[in-house]
Amino acid sequence: MNMMSQMMSMPMEDMSGMHGMQMSDIEACIEACSACEQACTMCSASDAAEGENMAVCSSMCATCADMCNTMMRSMMRPMGYESTSMMAMLEACMAMCNACADECMKHADMHEHCRLCAQACKDCAAACSTVLDSMKKAAMS
Amino acid sequence: MNMMSQMMSMPMEDMSGMHGMQMSDIEACIEACSACEQACTMCSASDAAEGENMAVCSSMCATCADMCNTMMRSMMRPMGYESTSMMAMLEACMAMCNACADECMKHADMHEHCRLCAQACKDCAAACSTVLDSMKKAAMS
Amino acid sequence: MNMMSQMMSMPMEDMSGMHGMQMSDIEACIEACSACEQACTMCSASDAAEGENMAVCSSMCATCADMCNTMMRSMMRPMGYESTSMMAMLEACMAMCNACADECMKHADMHEHCRLCAQACKDCAAACSTVLDSMKKAAMS
Amino acid sequence: MNMMSQMMSMPMEDMSGMHGMQMSDIEACIEACSACEQACTMCSASDAAEGENMAVCSSMCATCADMCNTMMRSMMRPMGYESTSMMAMLEACMAMCNACADECMKHADMHEHCRLCAQACKDCAAACSTVLDSMKKAAMS
Repeated sequence: MNMMSQMMSMPMEDMSGMHGMQMSDIEACIEACSACEQACTMCSASDAAEGENMAVCSSMCATCADMCNTMMRSMMRPMGYESTSMMAMLEACMAMCNACADECMKHADMHEHCRLCAQACKDCAAACSTVLDSMKKAAMS
Repeated sequence: MNMMSQMMSMPMEDMSGMHGMQMSDIEACIEACSACEQACTMCSASDAAEGENMAVCSSMCATCADMCNTMMRSMMRPMGYESTSMMAMLEACMAMCNACADECMKHADMHEHCRLCAQACKDCAAACSTVLDSMKKAAMS
Repeated sequence: MNMMSQMMSMPMEDMSGMHGMQMSDIEACIEACSACEQACTMCSASDAAEGENMAVCSSMCATCADMCNTMMRSMMRPMGYESTSMMAMLEACMAMCNACADECMKHADMHEHCRLCAQACKDCAAACSTVLDSMKKAAMS
Repeated sequence: MNMMSQMMSMPMEDMSGMHGMQMSDIEACIEACSACEQACTMCSASDAAEGENMAVCSSMCATCADMCNTMMRSMMRPMGYESTSMMAMLEACMAMCNACADECMKHADMHEHCRLCAQACKDCAAACSTVLDSMKKAAMS
């Protein structure tokens, strides 16, 4: 068990009211957010070096990096979990990752960093979706 | 016209596809996010000094500070605006600010920093709501 | 007295061991960091739209925005003040603001956002310097 | 070669003026900063649940998390590298990690999250030190 798993397992044991959330899904989502923040930070900076037609991509990647960092940190504070805001954050992070992936894919043939960033965005959106689906199912049951 | 207004006015002039967003509403939202990030950062740290029953409040404030910073920065990159993700981010920031305000209000009588933080959260949720309403109206027209 | 002053005054009253720090200097530094984060975030995004020769400026502004946010937040948690790390952070923030101001000044004639950003960086470096000087004097006395 | 290595290798190839920095050291430092940000974020939130005598630790961890994120992001924008500010940032991150490790070690026997966090802080300080030493040697040669 790695450091994050050890640290997450302690408060999660005591949590109530967040039915439907699996610790393994949350850990996978944290890892995907971290990877996406890194890819987007690098892609945003690299875009700026490739001409003014990459400005939209650079801004979207910068915002996606910020969103992923905020999503990651929010999941690392289990005592602060609250269903409505957590689900809204997951929706926002998914929307941003999907929009950023679409933008990066337009340049994937020309810029390798865009291809790698698009993949990190898709992976992050998928990881957020898994957590959100569990929460939605639990909310209905 | 202050520095932020001057800097925002340049890219906003060239924007298309973000109908319904008023620069004055966005500037007010940026200011409210900035104030809320500051209040939540201080409240989160102060909560930790007031006993273990404030741990939920401390975590919620820490996450709310991160959300508000991300919301603020995303609005400061107009070239990266994309309707779906922007609206989802506004929803998430509002949900977090409302949840954080509710939690802080529970302690407002005992802790002045909670009372001040709750007000900053409410103001930020209101400012986000104004921007979101304009975007929704524009999307329907 | 504004919200931040009210919230800062509470923990600061109880602090010991941080001799030489004036609350008014810290508040001015917090405000300067906040303004600089905003200017740098906007300048970094705008740079990307102005051609590949602005890539250095875009990356420096993005990092300067992050530094200023971290500097600001650290000052908003007085219970976590520790002299050695606080002074090192002030040095780092000043160095980044000065480097970013120099880079932005190269483009100030052509890009208004660079001129405004350079001024915000200089103001932030000066505000950090004031706090640092007080701490150094106190450390020697 | 992982995603980060692939993305970093591209701009690094073209860099000049940053003699003495090994890409492998920078990658190790990025990883250590990321792990430390995560450990500190979780430790800061957990501290708040363990009574008012943990408030100093909670604030120091929160600031250390912010510092590590800023350090990580700055290294991910090679085009923005500038020796003076980069070295000052490394010094600041090391100072904060060392101060945070010392504080966490006081509580390591009672709180497992403090023990794990202290280790992440020490690892991060060591990784920053390796990069800084290379830069200092290069500056003197």
